[in-house]
Amino acid sequence: MGKYVFGVDLGGTTVKMGLFDTDGNVSDKWEIVTDKTNNGEKILPDIADSIKGKMTERGIAATDVCGVGIGVPGPVDSKGVIYKAANLGWGVFNVSETLGGLLGLPVKTGNDANVAALGEMWKGGGVGYSSIVAVTLGTGVGGGIIVDGKVLAGATGAGGEIGHIHVEDNETEKCGCGNKGCLEQYSSATGITRLANRFLASSDKPSVLRDGEVSAKTVFDAVKAGDELAMEIAEKFGEYLGKGLASVACVVNPEAFVIGGGVSKAGPVLIDYISKYYLPNTFHGDRDVKFCLATLGNDAGIFGAARLVLE
Amino acid sequence: MGKYVFGVDLGGTTVKMGLFDTDGNVSDKWEIVTDKTNNGEKILPDIADSIKGKMTERGIAATDVCGVGIGVPGPVDSKGVIYKAANLGWGVFNVSETLGGLLGLPVKTGNDANVAALGEMWKGGGVGYSSIVAVTLGTGVGGGIIVDGKVLAGATGAGGEIGHIHVEDNETEKCGCGNKGCLEQYSSATGITRLANRFLASSDKPSVLRDGEVSAKTVFDAVKAGDELAMEIAEKFGEYLGKGLASVACVVNPEAFVIGGGVSKAGPVLIDYISKYYLPNTFHGDRDVKFCLATLGNDAGIFGAARLVLE
Repeated sequence: MGKYVFGVDLGGTTVKMGLFDTDGNVSDKWEIVTDKTNNGEKILPDIADSIKGKMTERGIAATDVCGVGIGVPGPVDSKGVIYKAANLGWGVFNVSETLGGLLGLPVKTGNDANVAALGEMWKGGGVGYSSIVAVTLGTGVGGGIIVDGKVLAGATGAGGEIGHIHVEDNETEKCGCGNKGCLEQYSSATGITRLANRFLASSDKPSVLRDGEVSAKTVFDAVKAGDELAMEIAEKFGEYLGKGLASVACVVNPEAFVIGGGVSKAGPVLIDYISKYYLPNTFHGDRDVKFCLATLGNDAGIFGAARLVLE
Repeated sequence: MGKYVFGVDLGGTTVKMGLFDTDGNVSDKWEIVTDKTNNGEKILPDIADSIKGKMTERGIAATDVCGVGIGVPGPVDSKGVIYKAANLGWGVFNVSETLGGLLGLPVKTGNDANVAALGEMWKGGGVGYSSIVAVTLGTGVGGGIIVDGKVLAGATGAGGEIGHIHVEDNETEKCGCGNKGCLEQYSSATGITRLANRFLASSDKPSVLRDGEVSAKTVFDAVKAGDELAMEIAEKFGEYLGKGLASVACVVNPEAFVIGGGVSKAGPVLIDYISKYYLPNTFHGDRDVKFCLATLGNDAGIFGAARLVLE
């Protein structure tokens, strides 16, 4: 087996890359721009060129490389077939085979959220566990499920799409997915802002949130400052997410939830609000599931992609 | 590898056993009584004696046996450790090691619902799929999740406990698990009876259900006969179960749901009511998930237990 692994995190704007040893130590990190022209046809050739360039630069032979892992923004099955990535203009094709052909190296492909979960389990907030659900609270709510050390990709790559669990019957606005009442509509950064604006509109309570920008960050800053209305918003956020994760636990019975994404910068207070509604709504066999904060930030993807090769 | 596999389905009243070849053909089926005296200490020795007896009777040498699979009524982890089986009086111990020691044969242990799921995938309603969620609508609602041909046991053996997904905030009665508003309270045989009695009490509509026994069977018989109130009950059942399974699909993205248990005898009409609420509430990546009826009935456990050995 080779000594090196490349981890690639393909996003809509940039491609993050890392050179790792098989113990997960990163010796180089760099980025290239994601070129989405012509339905993203240059993306994989650009990545291949960049990896080959790095190998030349560092004097690394192909025989020294175990493989290349890549996380992509769309549903991917366990064979490496992506079922559309609207962000990139991509249709349905086998990413592992295509990139592998360009590189002459073994390639493994995963969905970006699943791959980030693997990264957090390997070297981040989920270290020490082998079955986790990583929850990414960003623009949306992403989920990555790892069972006994392996990504649960799902039959058509839609495993772990926990942001689209239905949690509210009375929603009038549509989620990005087309449904109404998805978890993501209340627990993502965007969702918290939406909740906050609704609370501000329907209440006369004074709040620091009335005087400035309303965002997930300002809401949780206000919570920490003791703002009553902000605490009501956080309570509602916790109710949706706590109950949603209780359902997830009834299905997969993980060891831990690892909470990441921009919203997780609020810190431990976030977990307090989630746990409050998680505990009374989950099965007794899931009451000991741990809640941890993600620690790798934007690097979770490259770590997880590298780990994918070593699965 | 040997030619024979034993499949054991340990229940609270009887132990069902089957002798299989490695292709899943069953050449013998029998039962013994489950002796629960002294915290069920005789159960595994009785099973071992019965299997040894069958081997003698049939002239089967130990070297001809691949192993013994057993499904047990409680949470089991992937190593074969059971975390209490209240029904049997059992505490925490490794079933595979204990029964394996008594038999001198390799033993694999799984939770009964998970094992039944494996049976349905191998030789029942889920044939042709490798990732399924088996839903058992009996006294309770059991779930068994198979991902890429393997049981998802969960970190503490509580994987697939989908009957305890929280689906109703306004429930006043407790579920057997201690929570309120679990899926099982509306979608099991008992749950359908409860729903029916509530509908009968709160409505003046005439119904054949007012004149006789109220059960899951009589409700669905009345549905087929065009009884309006029965159809309202079935609609509510479908709403709870359809939405609950939509959540499950968002998590594991299976190829198919296989619906079994006593309630499933109602037939395809059951799936009509479930699908009606499943489709609008699930993620678009899960809209093509198939719904099938289980076909093995009470034999699913022995088939799945045998399959466990061949995993």
